[in-house]
Amino acid sequence: MTSHKYVYLFEEGAASMKSLLGGKGANLAEMTRIGLPVPPGFIVTTQTCNAYSANDQAMPEGADAQIETALRHLEQQTGKHLGDPANPLLVSVRSGAAVSMPGMMDTVLNLGMNDKTVEALANLTQNPRFAWDCYRRFIQMFCNVVLDLGLHEFETVFSGHKRRGGFKSDPEVPAEVLKQVVADYMKLTQRLSGKPFPQDPRTQLGLAIRAVFASWNNPRAIVYRKVHKIADALGTAVSVQSMAFGNMGDDSGTGVIFTRNPNTGVKEFYGEYLLNAQGEDVVAGIRTPHPIAQLRTELPEAYDQLFQTCELLEKHYTDMQDIEFTIEKKRLYMLQCRVGKRTAAAAVRIAVDLVSEGVINKEQAILRVDPVEIEKLLHRGIDPNAKVDVLATGLPASPGAASGRVSFDPDKAEKLKEEGHKVILLRHETTPDDIHGMVASEGVVTTRGGMTCHAAIVARGMGKPCIVGCDAIHIEEEHGVFHVGDRAIKEGEWISIDGATGRVILGAVPLVDAVLSPEFKELLAWADGMRRLGVRANADNPKDAQKAREFGAEGIGLCRTEHMFGQGGHHPERMAAVQKMILADNLEGRFAALDILRVMQEEDFRGILQAMAPYPVTIRLLDPPLHEFLPGQEDLAIQVAVAKATNNPAPEAEALLRKVRQLSEVNPMLGFRGVRLGVIYPEIYEMQVRAILAAAQELFAAGVDVHPEIMIPLVGHVTELKLMREMIAKIDADMQPRFKYHVGTMIELPRACVTADEIATEAEFFSFGTNDLTQTTFGYSRDDAEGKFLAQYVQQKVLAENPFVALDQQGVGKLVKMACELGRKTRPDIKLGICGEHGGEPSSIAFCHDAGLTYVSCSPFRVPVARLAAAQAAVRAGGQQATTSAV
Amino acid sequence: MTSHKYVYLFEEGAASMKSLLGGKGANLAEMTRIGLPVPPGFIVTTQTCNAYSANDQAMPEGADAQIETALRHLEQQTGKHLGDPANPLLVSVRSGAAVSMPGMMDTVLNLGMNDKTVEALANLTQNPRFAWDCYRRFIQMFCNVVLDLGLHEFETVFSGHKRRGGFKSDPEVPAEVLKQVVADYMKLTQRLSGKPFPQDPRTQLGLAIRAVFASWNNPRAIVYRKVHKIADALGTAVSVQSMAFGNMGDDSGTGVIFTRNPNTGVKEFYGEYLLNAQGEDVVAGIRTPHPIAQLRTELPEAYDQLFQTCELLEKHYTDMQDIEFTIEKKRLYMLQCRVGKRTAAAAVRIAVDLVSEGVINKEQAILRVDPVEIEKLLHRGIDPNAKVDVLATGLPASPGAASGRVSFDPDKAEKLKEEGHKVILLRHETTPDDIHGMVASEGVVTTRGGMTCHAAIVARGMGKPCIVGCDAIHIEEEHGVFHVGDRAIKEGEWISIDGATGRVILGAVPLVDAVLSPEFKELLAWADGMRRLGVRANADNPKDAQKAREFGAEGIGLCRTEHMFGQGGHHPERMAAVQKMILADNLEGRFAALDILRVMQEEDFRGILQAMAPYPVTIRLLDPPLHEFLPGQEDLAIQVAVAKATNNPAPEAEALLRKVRQLSEVNPMLGFRGVRLGVIYPEIYEMQVRAILAAAQELFAAGVDVHPEIMIPLVGHVTELKLMREMIAKIDADMQPRFKYHVGTMIELPRACVTADEIATEAEFFSFGTNDLTQTTFGYSRDDAEGKFLAQYVQQKVLAENPFVALDQQGVGKLVKMACELGRKTRPDIKLGICGEHGGEPSSIAFCHDAGLTYVSCSPFRVPVARLAAAQAAVRAGGQQATTSAV
Repeated sequence: MTSHKYVYLFEEGAASMKSLLGGKGANLAEMTRIGLPVPPGFIVTTQTCNAYSANDQAMPEGADAQIETALRHLEQQTGKHLGDPANPLLVSVRSGAAVSMPGMMDTVLNLGMNDKTVEALANLTQNPRFAWDCYRRFIQMFCNVVLDLGLHEFETVFSGHKRRGGFKSDPEVPAEVLKQVVADYMKLTQRLSGKPFPQDPRTQLGLAIRAVFASWNNPRAIVYRKVHKIADALGTAVSVQSMAFGNMGDDSGTGVIFTRNPNTGVKEFYGEYLLNAQGEDVVAGIRTPHPIAQLRTELPEAYDQLFQTCELLEKHYTDMQDIEFTIEKKRLYMLQCRVGKRTAAAAVRIAVDLVSEGVINKEQAILRVDPVEIEKLLHRGIDPNAKVDVLATGLPASPGAASGRVSFDPDKAEKLKEEGHKVILLRHETTPDDIHGMVASEGVVTTRGGMTCHAAIVARGMGKPCIVGCDAIHIEEEHGVFHVGDRAIKEGEWISIDGATGRVILGAVPLVDAVLSPEFKELLAWADGMRRLGVRANADNPKDAQKAREFGAEGIGLCRTEHMFGQGGHHPERMAAVQKMILADNLEGRFAALDILRVMQEEDFRGILQAMAPYPVTIRLLDPPLHEFLPGQEDLAIQVAVAKATNNPAPEAEALLRKVRQLSEVNPMLGFRGVRLGVIYPEIYEMQVRAILAAAQELFAAGVDVHPEIMIPLVGHVTELKLMREMIAKIDADMQPRFKYHVGTMIELPRACVTADEIATEAEFFSFGTNDLTQTTFGYSRDDAEGKFLAQYVQQKVLAENPFVALDQQGVGKLVKMACELGRKTRPDIKLGICGEHGGEPSSIAFCHDAGLTYVSCSPFRVPVARLAAAQAAVRAGGQQATTSAV
Repeated sequence: MTSHKYVYLFEEGAASMKSLLGGKGANLAEMTRIGLPVPPGFIVTTQTCNAYSANDQAMPEGADAQIETALRHLEQQTGKHLGDPANPLLVSVRSGAAVSMPGMMDTVLNLGMNDKTVEALANLTQNPRFAWDCYRRFIQMFCNVVLDLGLHEFETVFSGHKRRGGFKSDPEVPAEVLKQVVADYMKLTQRLSGKPFPQDPRTQLGLAIRAVFASWNNPRAIVYRKVHKIADALGTAVSVQSMAFGNMGDDSGTGVIFTRNPNTGVKEFYGEYLLNAQGEDVVAGIRTPHPIAQLRTELPEAYDQLFQTCELLEKHYTDMQDIEFTIEKKRLYMLQCRVGKRTAAAAVRIAVDLVSEGVINKEQAILRVDPVEIEKLLHRGIDPNAKVDVLATGLPASPGAASGRVSFDPDKAEKLKEEGHKVILLRHETTPDDIHGMVASEGVVTTRGGMTCHAAIVARGMGKPCIVGCDAIHIEEEHGVFHVGDRAIKEGEWISIDGATGRVILGAVPLVDAVLSPEFKELLAWADGMRRLGVRANADNPKDAQKAREFGAEGIGLCRTEHMFGQGGHHPERMAAVQKMILADNLEGRFAALDILRVMQEEDFRGILQAMAPYPVTIRLLDPPLHEFLPGQEDLAIQVAVAKATNNPAPEAEALLRKVRQLSEVNPMLGFRGVRLGVIYPEIYEMQVRAILAAAQELFAAGVDVHPEIMIPLVGHVTELKLMREMIAKIDADMQPRFKYHVGTMIELPRACVTADEIATEAEFFSFGTNDLTQTTFGYSRDDAEGKFLAQYVQQKVLAENPFVALDQQGVGKLVKMACELGRKTRPDIKLGICGEHGGEPSSIAFCHDAGLTYVSCSPFRVPVARLAAAQAAVRAGGQQATTSAV
């Protein structure tokens, strides 16, 4: 029978063994392996932890014996022995999972202390106070972590002694008093646990290792794993390491260091240290640590050694490191190293610099930067040096920062804006009726809603900061005030918001503009060289189109014409024409209204085609149901009923109500919209097609390289598309001069996916509308699901992710892939794009790459995100590809 | 160069060549082939017609020459010659497509007449009047059909002569006058067409053939093909046949005969004839034809020959025939034979009788009866002998007949019913709020809506007659009257309706009960022996369950518990409990309400499980969104607003409105319903599961063989189902004694289809909810689509069929098949059923057979339809299968 290996000496491990040894243990082993000064020790594996958990909290057979063997080896290496009253070995016992879970599990330091070894420590350090304080702290920590006794009663004992002795702070307490405290702790332990404090260090060690294993399943660790989507089956390893003491005098010390500046990414030593101190003292904040540069003068040899070690570590790990060290009597010890956390700006700078330094290649650099993070670099932010008074924190729904006078009402917001004020719109939630208020505002806060609620989506589309679900805020609209706890802020007062973090701040705080660093541009240029996916933007007007080009968009993937129809309150005069068209009693009236719209649309299309030339512009014909352009039925019905009840006849409202009722739908999402409008009322689509072709023709005649793509929404059956193509061909027949244009369709219905081979006979391109496709595939109305059950579904893990945020690859993705395959079977060169919200989400972009799509399209501010994510997908899928294909 | 064959002599063709020779031509050829007395002739093929149409109305090369050859052959056969002044050949020129299109295309009789042959005919028949009348009619027919001249002016000429001569009817007009008419016709032809009437019979023939070809594309033929879904590419053939004369004296005659009674199916000669007459005279109705039996005494030899020929033809074609014959001087000539049209009752009788007679086998018999038609045999009907005054005709949405007092309002209808009156509910359309009115009524008529509108579906489910989309009716509810044209019928007057034909009839007409004939039962018994698909019924109460068993259902495939929750107004006391549950502010209140419901549900389930034992009963847990159990938001909002405006505060309505608003949804179809309720409010499903298991347990303990199947609706992700199964397992844990039950899911979302392999890990059965699956796959809200665009989609042929009526096999069907395959991959013995409306529709049932489903489930009255359709599918798919598998 071969015995399983449960324990690894540091010299037996390596960085690659993270899943077995935990992150901390693997790095300690790695540092040992490459000859760095690491206090010796050993690691009990994550598998041991899992066996322990599975085995009803019992150590697997043989594990304890292996620990004993490793311990003997450690004693040999250090020349110290656990419990030796002359030269005792003290060890730290730390948890360490494969994935960092800071503060989530337990640690025991100075293990090995007892009534005898405390004296030895006093002798060896010539510092009895230190030795007794160590002992006191160890007992307290051990009782809490290992024996699960409450900290509170220990604190009470200690503070009693302090009070009676008149000591204001811990360091004032002398060794004699600490001895009494220890004596009292011993009694307390006996009383609380029914047993004496374990004096045998081997018993201490066995209990401590078991306690660390058990801490893997403490409630806060379980919650942390849920939140961060870490598998429960990973388990934690335990590192047992001989202690090094940074508090052995002024030639000792301890510190934390980053090999580069984690805020800016600049290549400089960044960190701090304290002389004559242990790690805890740096964290405790009683003494102010010194900047690391100062160490150079205080302990030049140790500094040089540290500096060289850092350089070596960074090269070895090919990334910026976060290091803990201790200096014991001028001798440097490395206690931990790991890849350092950093800001988005630093991540970009470090990745690019490491390439210049020859440490990594460009592909590696591309993979080093989180695409989601870089969106923050594109927006304004709160000045990091400003003092801020945070009122509340909500969900960071759209990045960027803004200040303005708070307004609860979109109409008021619009008025304030007109009067020259800056406004922040604060609402319970927003609806399409509020869009004019959002347009007028610098940013939006809602008290309800999730990351994909209306406010979030619209604000992201507009590139405005937005915070949603900020439920600490209570709006009392009728009193013109909102409350946060017991604070009241009046409507009209200044607030600031940080959409990147979700902070709502009192007052107007200084903002800083986004400046795209040269490194950022360079990184994106590399990304462009690697990605196969094209990147387009969703934009409805020349301004957004311009912004999209600045961010590197190679075309427009979705230009929604309903916004040009006045939806969202931008153009009241257009809305009037649209309503006239809908309410017309005869074809004549309808055509007159359409003529007005055609002239406006032609101008829109001219503007946007010009702005994007020579890139393609995909224009989607009218999609929403017509009743969305009319007043709400309930409001009208109330108006009419009240008018009747109060004897004030309102015949116009009654007539309008009749029409609204006639158009009203039980399920508008599945109603009379998209191509269904085009089939039943061909004159509307005809008008739009005329406007597109006329605009393109005029520009083409003027020498502009235009590429319009006409996109038919909501096609479910090939015949719908066929009819629309025939209509377009008829209009096109008398167009001169000839320019090239394409006709294609949104694929946003399951039926379109499963019959994509048929649809491709009529479509030159597919653009996956994954928002609607997600709605129909899941049978979720996004407007309803978010507030009713979806949040709970994600929380209860019914769904791993909100499918409106990250594309559901098992379900919706399967349909997308099927459509791609069927479409290509009919038309091998069919252009395949995606224009739903998912087009800017990295995991979805990776999916699009794998599915062989031609391009993704997303809101302008997400274009750089998409460029980077597309490059990462290409690199991950098998190395760089020479050029970006045509979009 | 091989010349194409455009022309076939009768003796060269056969019945199997229908697509080339047309139905009429192929049957004439077949009769010739088997030696029956058919006047000789030839056929110009449908391909010639197609070539003619494609070739811009020009005969393909060689066709005219082949016609000439065939004509010569015909002249040899008959010994007569076209245009021969002594013994002229006269021919009929008739159209005939592969599919019968009665009256849609043109025919020319007596072709070959001219100024000379008319004299020959007069001599040969010794009847100048007959000859000249023939000539007159020929000119008129030829000018109209071939030369496209208006009939009107010819009629004017003829009636002028009649008026001047004082003749009251055509037969009175003597030969001399007819000669003058012919002379005037000649002048008129010259004047109208600019050319003389063609005297050359060969010219006449060429023109006539071309005219028949052209008539394939006349407007009424095009419309007919659209309506009957006949392909435009079929084309028509032209039969040219020598004329036989039934008007050569009292030893001649003509008639039409069915080989069996087309109304009852009884094996008897059925038809009529006239002596000394041509076919036109039978149709014209001037003389009353005699019943065919009389011919036996008048012309016994011809009768015997006819009788034998009919017997022979029926055996030859193995089906009841519809025959046209002519007797010329005691000699019988067959002019046409085809499969005779028949009533549903006759179809059943004939099929079963033909099996007894050894003419066909049982499988053939099964295929002879249209499943849709037999539903009519299950319902009461209007007495066929009654005189009826039809007010209007709508769409026949649910078969059966009923009489009652007309009521426009469901509440009034209910009240009338309570007072002992019979009621017919007449509405613009119905909604779920009207169900109590439908329950109280004998039948329902709506002025709007299509075959799958709310009224249609609910009425079919209830087995009540229903007519929808009867737009000739104008309801003036405020005046208590409805109008049809200029007739006004008051509310409360008696009307009758015939749901099988869509007729709305004034007054109470006598009705006849459905009596299931022994033949009908025998046919269904055969069907049961052939089908592989099981047949279940959708039923929500013991009464419907009983009905379903009577019709042969082998279980319940869908028992909707929401009806038991009081939806539809059946149970106001339950509705009150449901509302209490929804409105409860705390869990206590909710549980109290649920307890009341649990007791009621347990009783429901006991009843239905008992009624169906030992068959399985699939019970679907609550499906609709909770707001469906509360009053409508708009009504409440109006109530509150009016109360405010008139200073009558209504705090209760306000509170209710708040809750209704909170629960309201933009797209309820895609909202918070089905298993989503089960996940978020587990207590509701728990209550239902407890009730099901308790009821089953009690029956099982009493020795009843119960098989409950718990069905979770609207599952889109396997985890939803997993959670529900865990919940059920917990409840089940303490159930004693043990009985077997199953847990499965509706498959009604595209995501469920594409992840069916995962879902099958938790599901013991799938039941395809093709109503919702059609809605989500197409992105059609049925409530909206029918009235907004779907009818036009079908009319404009965007869709071949309404997908809510016949399963869309290309799209929805593809997903169903995928789900079947994936489900079986995970769980090879998974039970697969369908419980949407499609479960009772024959083409969908055939699809279900092909997809390998286990059973279909439909409304009780459709159960026999499904049994027959399932057998047909099995026979078509490859012969009889020994036994019906378990359902």
